[in-house]
Amino acid sequence: MTEPREWLVMWLRDAHAMEEQAETMLTGQASRIESYPDLKDRITRHLEETKAQAERLRQCLEGMGESPSKLKDAGGKLMATGQAMGGMFAGDEVMKGSLASYAFEQMEIASYRVLIAAAEHLGEMRVAEACKANLQEEIAMAEWLASHLPGTTRDFLDRAAAGDKDAKR
Amino acid sequence: MTEPREWLVMWLRDAHAMEEQAETMLTGQASRIESYPDLKDRITRHLEETKAQAERLRQCLEGMGESPSKLKDAGGKLMATGQAMGGMFAGDEVMKGSLASYAFEQMEIASYRVLIAAAEHLGEMRVAEACKANLQEEIAMAEWLASHLPGTTRDFLDRAAAGDKDAKR
Repeated sequence: MTEPREWLVMWLRDAHAMEEQAETMLTGQASRIESYPDLKDRITRHLEETKAQAERLRQCLEGMGESPSKLKDAGGKLMATGQAMGGMFAGDEVMKGSLASYAFEQMEIASYRVLIAAAEHLGEMRVAEACKANLQEEIAMAEWLASHLPGTTRDFLDRAAAGDKDAKR
Repeated sequence: MTEPREWLVMWLRDAHAMEEQAETMLTGQASRIESYPDLKDRITRHLEETKAQAERLRQCLEGMGESPSKLKDAGGKLMATGQAMGGMFAGDEVMKGSLASYAFEQMEIASYRVLIAAAEHLGEMRVAEACKANLQEEIAMAEWLASHLPGTTRDFLDRAAAGDKDAKR
């Protein structure tokens, strides 16, 4: 038997590790992209949001007398580094990166929906509010990525066909 | 320099491997879930859709004089088996599984948006139509999962708090 409060704390720690992972992933993508300036700008902007989101989650944990998990945070960063390095070797890095970022945003969206439901179920309204703030930023980023996917696809295909050596990034 | 047609073929092969991966993942989840009958039913229904989607992609490749990649398909299945086994050890397996399924659906959605843009850019309208059919099913599944997440969360927390040994699945 595990108390609902313990699950909420575990899921907040998972979410904090997820944002640490996002930070590593976005930092890698922002530094690599050259030929897609709008994408680079949006990722850079979301990187700043991501740092603030991690801090919001840390404060949620602190408010419950808990703290983030250093072990989970380190694991998340390691996984993100692996993903970023794997992507570098793909000839369609910008496409694989866009798909990965979008899927990651959606995982964050689902995680915050779970956290909001759990926090409200437990009457932890400050946690619910913080997660709602993070959720809105994730939804905006996911919508931006989705709406720009077709354009990035056409741009990538045209650059690749023209022999542009920087088509992939 | 890589021709747009070659990228379309590669991405169709990636999508076929992704659906093979989805099939393995959904089969594992459907066989494990006991306490959440609606979720089990919806996953079982989507499993049938997934098989038809893989077949549609195979036909797209065949229509272009190509075939799926056995290597990529095998890799996808292996990855899905690893994910499913990892989830079994989590005390909140149903929650982790719901998050993973939702994120996976969204990756499929993004992949089909890329494929549709690429196919239309190349005038491969039959490929675009097949991908649109798959996309609609993925969107319906993602929406179902998103709308049921809060309910599953509350149900899981109440079962776990009551000491239900099958709360997690």
